[in-house]
Amino acid sequence: MKPLQTINWEEGGTISFIDQTQLPNSFRIVRCRSVERLIMAIRRLEIRGAPALGIAGALGVALASRTIRERDDSKYLDMLRTEAERIAQSRPTAVNLSWGVRQALDAAMQGTSISDIRIRALEAALRVAEDDARSCHALGEYGAILLPDPCTVLTHCNAGALACREWGTALGVVRSAVEQGKEVRVLACETRPLLQGARLTAWELFRDGIPVTVIPDSSAALLMMQKEIDVVIVGADRVTRDAVFNKVGTYMHALCARHHCIPFYVAAPLSTFDPMHRAAEITIEERGREEVASFCRVPTVPDGVPVRNPAFDATPHELVTAFFTDAGAFRPPLEWDLLSTGGPGT
Amino acid sequence: MKPLQTINWEEGGTISFIDQTQLPNSFRIVRCRSVERLIMAIRRLEIRGAPALGIAGALGVALASRTIRERDDSKYLDMLRTEAERIAQSRPTAVNLSWGVRQALDAAMQGTSISDIRIRALEAALRVAEDDARSCHALGEYGAILLPDPCTVLTHCNAGALACREWGTALGVVRSAVEQGKEVRVLACETRPLLQGARLTAWELFRDGIPVTVIPDSSAALLMMQKEIDVVIVGADRVTRDAVFNKVGTYMHALCARHHCIPFYVAAPLSTFDPMHRAAEITIEERGREEVASFCRVPTVPDGVPVRNPAFDATPHELVTAFFTDAGAFRPPLEWDLLSTGGPGT
Repeated sequence: MKPLQTINWEEGGTISFIDQTQLPNSFRIVRCRSVERLIMAIRRLEIRGAPALGIAGALGVALASRTIRERDDSKYLDMLRTEAERIAQSRPTAVNLSWGVRQALDAAMQGTSISDIRIRALEAALRVAEDDARSCHALGEYGAILLPDPCTVLTHCNAGALACREWGTALGVVRSAVEQGKEVRVLACETRPLLQGARLTAWELFRDGIPVTVIPDSSAALLMMQKEIDVVIVGADRVTRDAVFNKVGTYMHALCARHHCIPFYVAAPLSTFDPMHRAAEITIEERGREEVASFCRVPTVPDGVPVRNPAFDATPHELVTAFFTDAGAFRPPLEWDLLSTGGPGT
Repeated sequence: MKPLQTINWEEGGTISFIDQTQLPNSFRIVRCRSVERLIMAIRRLEIRGAPALGIAGALGVALASRTIRERDDSKYLDMLRTEAERIAQSRPTAVNLSWGVRQALDAAMQGTSISDIRIRALEAALRVAEDDARSCHALGEYGAILLPDPCTVLTHCNAGALACREWGTALGVVRSAVEQGKEVRVLACETRPLLQGARLTAWELFRDGIPVTVIPDSSAALLMMQKEIDVVIVGADRVTRDAVFNKVGTYMHALCARHHCIPFYVAAPLSTFDPMHRAAEITIEERGREEVASFCRVPTVPDGVPVRNPAFDATPHELVTAFFTDAGAFRPPLEWDLLSTGGPGT
């Protein structure tokens, strides 16, 4: 089966992407021709996943460079910077989004004319997309070597092809292991509130014929106790010097895995590593009440009762057995100098 | 406001109960006149919560004693035993259900005529209901003394008035603390898949004016890390010699609480304690795929992808800071002799 491609640039200045809010019930490709629509897609999680957000950010700058109608070079560049900043700010926690924006913007800034700027922004954005695909395959290979055969992998949220250009990070490791001939089975935590595990991880693995079973997030610890889980592999939205920011729930899985002596792996390309910050400096995005308090507009929480909906949590490096990156597998404590081949803070 | 009464006997031989599957969107009292309907209510979780199941079991025997039309004493008793067994088997994990059935059946067996059996079964069942209300108030008082003031309590599932005759176990402790003048705020885990925390705990606390906020189950560990949780209090479906069986997710909260040095309390009447069994002997009920895989008939998991849906997990006593019971607060290891004043195995 043809590999999934989550986000693409199409001739004529269009970003096409799979609308991830509609899966698994409908597979819909959106063709997006404005920065406004792209920002809406990022906020609504039609596009989500740290690496995919990096690509969306870079392609967004390329799109902006084509939609700005200003003729004056200096005013044009000011407007491009403003648009780039708006895209970068559309979600605060994942580092890849602003990193992707900067890749394309920095390239654009070296343009000698508006048409040259447009070409450079697009070339840089396409490079971000290609690099991401290459990174996922590389980290997949590094990680897959370390998986036992056979094994059952617990994963949380969706760190798959749908979160990247293709292949995936955590699920990239699974795919590479399957390619190496290993027998791998995945337990996908459904991942409340938006069910990316149930909807997306299950969908893309089932599509590829990789055995997957969906479980409620809260049952992972029981299955660890019952020795049904061999390893945990998750993705990351940002790896600071001291912690892994990833979908809320990751931290509890890490604590439970440690208690049961189960390896806990984080799979992420170098573009996700942020050596310039510590966890305390990062804003954890708090999303809307309605994501928790209703489903398909049916209320699940009584009117008037408040809800907390933090999208991410922070897992200390000490709980991570190893990081699978495109530069190799690393055990903490990380030697940041070794990683400095393309990360956002470098 | 009048205290909630979850389940009642009505003149004329009817069990009335609040249909808990319809909350918070509709408050519906069901009047049940057959054992068949009662068993359906238990299986569908219209009636749920360990103490409420104990009352339902006992009232079910009283109901059966009235609906059996047989005139021959010996055949009548055989049929009553069969009906009692059917009720007791309708859910396997909570010990209270079969305990409640036995309370009423044992009393009935001492009857000297069919009409005497009917009277004795009903009297025993009403005693179970009254004892439960008394137990909840007693354990509430014992527990409340130990809560700091002010404090934020994390709870999981619904161990409230709706899970009992009234007042509640975990939430009984909260209500008693509020009655003692303490400032208590509750974080209610929504409790996947059936959202008893979001739907029921939030509903009954909000009704009583006790501050409550709903959170996804997977965010509890983050809030512990951020020092927003002072204590965890949960109920129990069965306390064996070595473990606490309660709604799946309880074990992960216990592990995370231990890591963060947060007290983890279990509030349960003695009728929930089962000194005759160890965890390995208890069947954990695995419930249907559809509870996890759809919401209001909208699929959340792709067709063909399997689901695991264990309803309970088993938390080792070592992770419990104290048990709040109607006979006092006890730290593990439990001295079972001290508890032997009414538990099911005694």
